[in-house]
Amino acid sequence: MILDKVNMPCDLKGLNIDELNTLSYKIRKLIIKKVNTTGGHFGPNLGIVEATIALHYVFNCPIDKIIFDVSHQCYPHKILTGRKEGFTNPEKYLEYTGYTAPEESTCDVFKVGHTSTSVSLAVGTAKARDLINGNENVIALIGDGSLSGGEAYEGLNNAAELNSNIIIVVNDNDMSIAENYGGLYKNLKLLRETNGEAENNFFKTLGFKYAYVNEGNNIERLIEVFKDVKDTKCPTVVHIRTIKGLGVKAAEENKEAYHWILPNTLDENNCPKAKTESAGETYDSITTDLILKKAACDSSIIAISPATPGAYGFTKEFREKLGKQYMDVGIAEEHAVAYASALAKNGAKPVLSVLSSFIQRTYDQLSQDLCLNNSPATILIQWGAIMGADCTHLGCFDIPLMGNIPNLVYLAPTNKEEYLRMLEWSIEQTRYPVAIRVPFGSVVSSGNEDKTDYSVLNKFRMDKKGKNIVIIGLGNFYHLGEKVFEAIKNKFGFNATLINPLFISGIDEDMLNSLKDNHSLVITLEDGVLDGGFGEKISRFYGNSKMRVLNFGAKKEFTDRVPIEELYQRYHLTPDLILDDILKAMPVLRK
Amino acid sequence: MILDKVNMPCDLKGLNIDELNTLSYKIRKLIIKKVNTTGGHFGPNLGIVEATIALHYVFNCPIDKIIFDVSHQCYPHKILTGRKEGFTNPEKYLEYTGYTAPEESTCDVFKVGHTSTSVSLAVGTAKARDLINGNENVIALIGDGSLSGGEAYEGLNNAAELNSNIIIVVNDNDMSIAENYGGLYKNLKLLRETNGEAENNFFKTLGFKYAYVNEGNNIERLIEVFKDVKDTKCPTVVHIRTIKGLGVKAAEENKEAYHWILPNTLDENNCPKAKTESAGETYDSITTDLILKKAACDSSIIAISPATPGAYGFTKEFREKLGKQYMDVGIAEEHAVAYASALAKNGAKPVLSVLSSFIQRTYDQLSQDLCLNNSPATILIQWGAIMGADCTHLGCFDIPLMGNIPNLVYLAPTNKEEYLRMLEWSIEQTRYPVAIRVPFGSVVSSGNEDKTDYSVLNKFRMDKKGKNIVIIGLGNFYHLGEKVFEAIKNKFGFNATLINPLFISGIDEDMLNSLKDNHSLVITLEDGVLDGGFGEKISRFYGNSKMRVLNFGAKKEFTDRVPIEELYQRYHLTPDLILDDILKAMPVLRK
Repeated sequence: MILDKVNMPCDLKGLNIDELNTLSYKIRKLIIKKVNTTGGHFGPNLGIVEATIALHYVFNCPIDKIIFDVSHQCYPHKILTGRKEGFTNPEKYLEYTGYTAPEESTCDVFKVGHTSTSVSLAVGTAKARDLINGNENVIALIGDGSLSGGEAYEGLNNAAELNSNIIIVVNDNDMSIAENYGGLYKNLKLLRETNGEAENNFFKTLGFKYAYVNEGNNIERLIEVFKDVKDTKCPTVVHIRTIKGLGVKAAEENKEAYHWILPNTLDENNCPKAKTESAGETYDSITTDLILKKAACDSSIIAISPATPGAYGFTKEFREKLGKQYMDVGIAEEHAVAYASALAKNGAKPVLSVLSSFIQRTYDQLSQDLCLNNSPATILIQWGAIMGADCTHLGCFDIPLMGNIPNLVYLAPTNKEEYLRMLEWSIEQTRYPVAIRVPFGSVVSSGNEDKTDYSVLNKFRMDKKGKNIVIIGLGNFYHLGEKVFEAIKNKFGFNATLINPLFISGIDEDMLNSLKDNHSLVITLEDGVLDGGFGEKISRFYGNSKMRVLNFGAKKEFTDRVPIEELYQRYHLTPDLILDDILKAMPVLRK
Repeated sequence: MILDKVNMPCDLKGLNIDELNTLSYKIRKLIIKKVNTTGGHFGPNLGIVEATIALHYVFNCPIDKIIFDVSHQCYPHKILTGRKEGFTNPEKYLEYTGYTAPEESTCDVFKVGHTSTSVSLAVGTAKARDLINGNENVIALIGDGSLSGGEAYEGLNNAAELNSNIIIVVNDNDMSIAENYGGLYKNLKLLRETNGEAENNFFKTLGFKYAYVNEGNNIERLIEVFKDVKDTKCPTVVHIRTIKGLGVKAAEENKEAYHWILPNTLDENNCPKAKTESAGETYDSITTDLILKKAACDSSIIAISPATPGAYGFTKEFREKLGKQYMDVGIAEEHAVAYASALAKNGAKPVLSVLSSFIQRTYDQLSQDLCLNNSPATILIQWGAIMGADCTHLGCFDIPLMGNIPNLVYLAPTNKEEYLRMLEWSIEQTRYPVAIRVPFGSVVSSGNEDKTDYSVLNKFRMDKKGKNIVIIGLGNFYHLGEKVFEAIKNKFGFNATLINPLFISGIDEDMLNSLKDNHSLVITLEDGVLDGGFGEKISRFYGNSKMRVLNFGAKKEFTDRVPIEELYQRYHLTPDLILDDILKAMPVLRK
């Protein structure tokens, strides 16, 4: 069987076109079965099978370097570069990451998971080669969706001036995760429609040599073109038109839904299984319900997503209902923040939703475009939490990132009622840039309407007034604080004081001062990295007092698919472990 | 006199072309005199006089909105929008900021000082107008140099899809601060050479309507074109060719040197005064000397600047000497970091130099492209300090920004010898991404060669071993620590302990633990904002101990041209004020 013969790129060299085509059929089958078992990126990988085979047929990895963008599309590459077992052997399905990872193979040049980086990384790689007199090919593989990101453009601009070998393969499947947005996409469409011959050509304006392959899933045609550009001495774009989700009808027809799939999405015939009913209320549904309700009576409300609407319930239906009151800016987080700032500054009411990991793109825009201008925009930070995710998509760095920017009011609701009140307040107020760390996980309801006036900044809420120990539980970890409260009560027989700080970006000095009288220990709990975070502000505040402070949260490190329970153990984020640490800090509690 | 008649944009409407030309002559004279007195942006403002007059003649500010990019070129606009006295009256020269500032005038829409933001901000402004049914014109003014920034591209991409009025005036003077770099600039050149008629047109590829004005300093011609596009219903680019520095021969001929000038650069005939001799050794000269020396024997060394080479001594001579071992990537900080990461990962030795305020553009690239990949690149952070600068260019946020990213080794040298040792070590080592906060100010020499092995991470250095009080003086503020040491000795008669931590990004737990024995107070001194910074890590460390900690540094706020002495008073950053705070914390010291 052909798959048995192919372990590394060199094994492709002797195959003929028929064999390569058979190989593509086999690889596609492997991907379908594996991803439908474990979940993962589906459509992007199915679309790139032929191009990956052609690249490895023509070029010589790891000497020649293929640099993936976002690496949503690296599974065929993994199969061809020594990691086939991760797709053939169900026991090894979870052994390899879903992204390129140099520690797995020398054929992976970088660890990547954010978009729009491959061209920049390839320019640096090519320049290093030129400085040390190498002569290998450097290839960046980038999807059309990723081309809207500023970093990709900055990279292209510099690549065009390289005066030596760099080959940028634009994998154009006419989709981002959702639809593409941006003027550029009209040009890509024109190029597709003219078989790459339109005079007006984005890549040519930047100075690239340009080739177009209409049949981007045709191995033979791809090999021809890649052979043509191999060892080129000038910056070259190869624009290939591929079909996202190729080989699975449902994925070809509904590209957004099949960009990434859950386990068991398809039946044995690769047809969609009946969907289970939606699980009821979620923080996503609460958010979209409120936006829709408000937008119906207020035309100045606008919801914004930087190309990740599906991650937080901005469904097709939601987008269509909002009409011109919805804007997908493409993969362009920097612009998204500046855009929201300008909307707010000019009388509209923007609600921008961004994943914690991707807000990292925007520190300067948050600082300069938004906060320096004190624009009253609303930013929802999604998936902000310590999590067992890939190292490229951790959601634990937003507190240090955003909590230390002047003027920004960063809020941490702990339940549905607080979240709704904060969101409503933020949308309507006109004084502050506001970010809300949307609770992560299942909806918690207090059952009581929240009537807090959040325009009185940095007022913590004391939910239980006790003695000896203060528990400050921020956002998601307020509920951990409640458990610690109960554990203290059970173990030591007294009520501690339990505080819901509500604000991440500032501290309630009056309340903190008032605690000095009959408490000797404060513990802070935050669902994020400790360094530069919330708890350190409490430690600083009490630095010149007798109060002891213990900060609980994540260590400053990149973790990679470490199960969350393991991380909680590692960081002492369970009631028992916290109790142990309390006992160490207050030995007097030992009876 | 014509200037007396013009205070606000409406005063232009009745003037004829001759009068407008006279006005431009007068405005230019004002700018030359004022900037040559106070220092400031020179070339950009001289080049944009005519376009500003034409814009205000055709459009109706503040109803129509003109959004400046970086606002290096807003002086003529200030003169025409009620702030003329800031240029006519020497006593008022310093009353207005050098940037657009909404608090000064309703004709300024945003406070800006970083580049490449105007298009994004204009798209949001235009969209707000559309949502609330306004009909004013929204104009973004952006220089060709700013077009290399990713945020500008992200904005353009979205602007092209606006389906309503937005006018982007591209002020093309064929210069960034230094020369332009990037493929785009070949296209701008082609457009200039073909009078805007080349078929291959960057702006048209994105979907813009496009107009070209070759005589961008001709008011009459500009008025015609602006009238043409006024009230347009589709996204439109007006590409005007202007002459940077127009009216001052030296500035026209040496555009880089006259982008921004010091006071008294010109004599009464607007000719360059003889330059005073260079002030001897600076941290810039130390840096460039070392790079040149090493680059001469090692072709893998490469110096990189994102379009601000003059800010840190990467002079024309330096750049020419380095040849292909120097790269200006254009205004493209994101790319610069990813590029440096890839160079380092592939065997080259990159040294990227960036201002503290502009590294803010790159949090995600530092995290994902650089640190997650553990690429051993060297990044020099320049102008990192609490400073009396404009609110748009503060250098006090880099410690929270960079100090909390995993894997990054962020170093704080306090003198020449440490800096040289760190730079040398960083360039040659292959294990860590390293950033060095280059000392700000005059060169300090210890006179002793530094032999520290910085690959042993997070080892603080105890320079004076004393008792009772520990002074940890980070980077620039080590010298403040020395003064506090002396003050304590003089006032209280004992030697404190003085520590130079050297590392910003980690703490020396062993040393900190050892201090618990005979000290009761630690003070930390850092030349940056406290929130999320270095001192808070020390406070966290000692949270569960008797040790008192006082953190000294800046408050989390945007300050705007506040004299540095005033900031030092405000933040208690003088030996006397620190001593007062120590006394409050340790009343036992009062005799």
